[in-house]
Amino acid sequence: MYLEKINSPEDVKKLNVEEMKVLAQEIREAIIKRDAIHGGHFGPNLGMVEATIALHYVFESPKDKFVFDVSHQTYPHKMLTGRRQAFTDEEHYDDVTGYSNQHESEHDHFILGHTSTSISLALGLAKARDVKEEKGNVIAIIGDGSLSGGEALEGLDFAGELKTNFIVIANDNDMSIAENHGGLYKNLKLLRETEGKAECNLFKAMGLEYVFVKDGNNIEELIETFKKVKDKDHPITVHIHTQKGKGYKLAEENKEPWHYIMPFNIEDGKPLNNDDIEDYTDVTKEYLIKKMKEDKTVVTITAGTPGNFGFSRKEREELGEQFVDVGIAEQTAVALASGMASKGAKPVFTVVSSFIQRAYDQLSQDLCINNNPATIVVSYGGAIGMTDVTHLGWFDIAMMSNIPNLVYLAPTTKEEHLAMLEWSIEQQEHPVAIRLPGGKMVSTGEKVTKDFSKLNTYEVKQKGEKVAILGLGTFYQLGEKAAKLYEEKTGVKATVINPMYITGVDEKLLEELKKDHSVVITLEDGILNGGFGEKIARFYGNSDVKVLNYGLKKEFLDRYNIGKVLTENRLKADLIVEDLLKF
Amino acid sequence: MYLEKINSPEDVKKLNVEEMKVLAQEIREAIIKRDAIHGGHFGPNLGMVEATIALHYVFESPKDKFVFDVSHQTYPHKMLTGRRQAFTDEEHYDDVTGYSNQHESEHDHFILGHTSTSISLALGLAKARDVKEEKGNVIAIIGDGSLSGGEALEGLDFAGELKTNFIVIANDNDMSIAENHGGLYKNLKLLRETEGKAECNLFKAMGLEYVFVKDGNNIEELIETFKKVKDKDHPITVHIHTQKGKGYKLAEENKEPWHYIMPFNIEDGKPLNNDDIEDYTDVTKEYLIKKMKEDKTVVTITAGTPGNFGFSRKEREELGEQFVDVGIAEQTAVALASGMASKGAKPVFTVVSSFIQRAYDQLSQDLCINNNPATIVVSYGGAIGMTDVTHLGWFDIAMMSNIPNLVYLAPTTKEEHLAMLEWSIEQQEHPVAIRLPGGKMVSTGEKVTKDFSKLNTYEVKQKGEKVAILGLGTFYQLGEKAAKLYEEKTGVKATVINPMYITGVDEKLLEELKKDHSVVITLEDGILNGGFGEKIARFYGNSDVKVLNYGLKKEFLDRYNIGKVLTENRLKADLIVEDLLKF
Repeated sequence: MYLEKINSPEDVKKLNVEEMKVLAQEIREAIIKRDAIHGGHFGPNLGMVEATIALHYVFESPKDKFVFDVSHQTYPHKMLTGRRQAFTDEEHYDDVTGYSNQHESEHDHFILGHTSTSISLALGLAKARDVKEEKGNVIAIIGDGSLSGGEALEGLDFAGELKTNFIVIANDNDMSIAENHGGLYKNLKLLRETEGKAECNLFKAMGLEYVFVKDGNNIEELIETFKKVKDKDHPITVHIHTQKGKGYKLAEENKEPWHYIMPFNIEDGKPLNNDDIEDYTDVTKEYLIKKMKEDKTVVTITAGTPGNFGFSRKEREELGEQFVDVGIAEQTAVALASGMASKGAKPVFTVVSSFIQRAYDQLSQDLCINNNPATIVVSYGGAIGMTDVTHLGWFDIAMMSNIPNLVYLAPTTKEEHLAMLEWSIEQQEHPVAIRLPGGKMVSTGEKVTKDFSKLNTYEVKQKGEKVAILGLGTFYQLGEKAAKLYEEKTGVKATVINPMYITGVDEKLLEELKKDHSVVITLEDGILNGGFGEKIARFYGNSDVKVLNYGLKKEFLDRYNIGKVLTENRLKADLIVEDLLKF
Repeated sequence: MYLEKINSPEDVKKLNVEEMKVLAQEIREAIIKRDAIHGGHFGPNLGMVEATIALHYVFESPKDKFVFDVSHQTYPHKMLTGRRQAFTDEEHYDDVTGYSNQHESEHDHFILGHTSTSISLALGLAKARDVKEEKGNVIAIIGDGSLSGGEALEGLDFAGELKTNFIVIANDNDMSIAENHGGLYKNLKLLRETEGKAECNLFKAMGLEYVFVKDGNNIEELIETFKKVKDKDHPITVHIHTQKGKGYKLAEENKEPWHYIMPFNIEDGKPLNNDDIEDYTDVTKEYLIKKMKEDKTVVTITAGTPGNFGFSRKEREELGEQFVDVGIAEQTAVALASGMASKGAKPVFTVVSSFIQRAYDQLSQDLCINNNPATIVVSYGGAIGMTDVTHLGWFDIAMMSNIPNLVYLAPTTKEEHLAMLEWSIEQQEHPVAIRLPGGKMVSTGEKVTKDFSKLNTYEVKQKGEKVAILGLGTFYQLGEKAAKLYEEKTGVKATVINPMYITGVDEKLLEELKKDHSVVITLEDGILNGGFGEKIARFYGNSDVKVLNYGLKKEFLDRYNIGKVLTENRLKADLIVEDLLKF
């Protein structure tokens, strides 16, 4: 065992090539075992084992600085930088995050989990080094999939005019999470086929010097090349061709499902928990597939993450030109949707809450100023979603709902969601976004007859008095529960309202509530700051109606406990009623 | 005169080449005269006269669709598509906007004024054409400067895998607004020098076919090439080399100041209104230049708009490595600043309110999750700024102030601004943004002694009773004025507070106000939705204190009248007092 002796990169430097090859095998086995038990990023880590060993062998981290794009391939790096126990000892699997994190190690420089940021961040390290007259190499490691993102291409371009040391390792495994999309991948293919000799070269066209490593899983070849580029006084790209999923046959053969994996049986690759409860993304996909078959002008768009709504490769191929993957390029996805909608096509951009953040200006300028009737379906919003700090779904309400012209809807059930989706796709008046609720899907079986074109008309679901509860999206049912509990405790039946429209205030209804209500409660599954409840508080600011806003605190939390967060924010029926009783 | 006979593109098609050359001269003269009187985009329009004529001669707009990036070069297009009077008749100069606008003409397809969006928007038109089984060419016209923006590069990449007609006209005048920055410009230079023959070619590397036009101001050459690429069944780039400012000697010789111009004397190019009143951007620049001289680790960053803070070419050259222009690439600018700040350098990103919108995710992920102490100075925020719908400065508060960890400051005077800037650059705890106030600079001469590290501590400037006025940033003085008027009318002295911290609530102070205040007023120079005032309304939601929020309505307005907008939103001292008296 070499791995157990590796406590820092210094220990890697003591090994010879043959020993490093054994180390690579040990690292690989640890990743496979750990992910089989714990789940995690799989294929990208297996592909980068040798390159990471070679990087630490040749460079002197932390004086030399590595920035790993999106962090999907950082497990080998973590193992070599004092954090191996978190990968070899089951009890310590949760000691480290799944992402790069400077608070864990001096060998990490950023908390980083969104794609395409590494080059630009690393440029900051290089620039700081230069103005502080320090030394050392700065190395951005970026996968081919991440290269389709605007920030990565901006960074590559700006790197091309740097006059000092800067190294980009382009880790080309010929895959994004799914297959790659974009013209640049034809160039990467040409470069692989010509062993880097083709004159037409994206990296050179961006102004960087270029070298190619044919076998990016060959430690000797990697070491030799890294030694050559070390301490260069100008920007250079090292294009390494690696094998995603290397060392686990199923992942080598079927790369997409093995990009990120939930716990599985190592023998046959079968998932340990076969949790196939239908959720909001599933019914969205089913609906869209049916809709696209009926209407050739309906097109589903994804930005490199078709799996988030469950579109399999087979389904995508069957949908042909009606399923568009723009690559990891949310900005272009929004603009594309706007352009299509402007001419009567019916685009539906399916996107994760945390990733729609990457297209604020496109929502505002490309889409909403033009008021084009595109549809956006936002998944994994709210507290009951991804819990890594880089993937929080808490911010979309504050970010999107204050953009003029956008109609942002919060369904509370499957039926409402599908009715909204149908309405949105067919209407020609507004850009519409729909926020899938968090948690288990609620299905009432009730037919939804509401005319959604009457904007900002909330639905009173229970007419009561004194207290009115506005339960937005995910938390509508919490509102119902709190009302029930309040009635049990006080005999007072509260009014329960399903607002549905995040982007607007139903002034008429709120005005009416003034007559026989003294307290209005808002519940929302996002940060309070800039959110829905504050608009209600503003509306009642000059009146005698009291407003209590419930939602999440504005903060970045990492790998939080959902129950704890909900309790801390008093998003529980008993706590809400406790607050009410104080009144 | 040919121009006076051009009422639609059909009329262009009737001309022969010699006549089109005369038409070009007429268009050029009209632009020069109109901009001399009215102001507007100058160099980009003069450079594109011939190409626009040739485009309309060869293609059939609106069946064939043109999307002009950023719209800085659309005047000739407007003149040829039924809007010539707005350029030839002084009384009609304001009949059209300075930007592309589908509500003006069927030959425009988007309202579009931010950079780097044309390719992705045009891809939407192409995709709509294809799924609707329609015909026609889709043509995105993009300047070389715009190519450094992430969305443009994403779009180019995605275009490269399209299997149907799509044409990118790369209008290369070897300039951004200022000089170009980025490695790709070395490739454009190589392509110009080799007349497009160099094998290393950015556009080919992105998967597009490519042709070069040596003289992009030669109508014959352009027509010949456009005819060749028309109706192609796959994506192609036409790289045309044009001369920015062509036809006006001063603009040809000194391109940067002639990109956009205020009214000037045609004879000598001198500005008609020499309004050199010092403003907040001027004092920012002066301060930064001094600071950079004292401290080599202070670096000013711009994303392609150095002129917005008045940094002249000479000053930039003198600052050397301490002035960084990343090109039109706000995402990279924020990431760069974050990376620099993480290692103890002191970056200051200077940016226009409307353009920081292009980096929401970078603010959140690259900067604020990492909590790196970079400084951002935001200019042209608020109502008293740019009035074009694509450049509204109303959204930055809602967009930025709800991001955790960010300290967003609103100075009310020159002295406060400079004290905040000094504090921000030297502190090591927080990412900080400073929002320059709108309107004329206020200078009190008072020394600012506040310790800004005590976050969210508002300053009580006048202690009164019953009414408290929180005047944020621009509108602090309005708050003072309203208080004075209210005292005159009622004898009651209101409390006047300078909140300074947009991102936080001074809970202690607000709690104290409850004792002897029944009404709290907030004033802010941005949309109310998601803004500062709503947080105050939320704070007081469960109390007897009434809150009146003043700010702007959430809407997109184009070329609005500032006074009218302020009146409509009751942002006038007399209207505020009128509202108060109703209580």
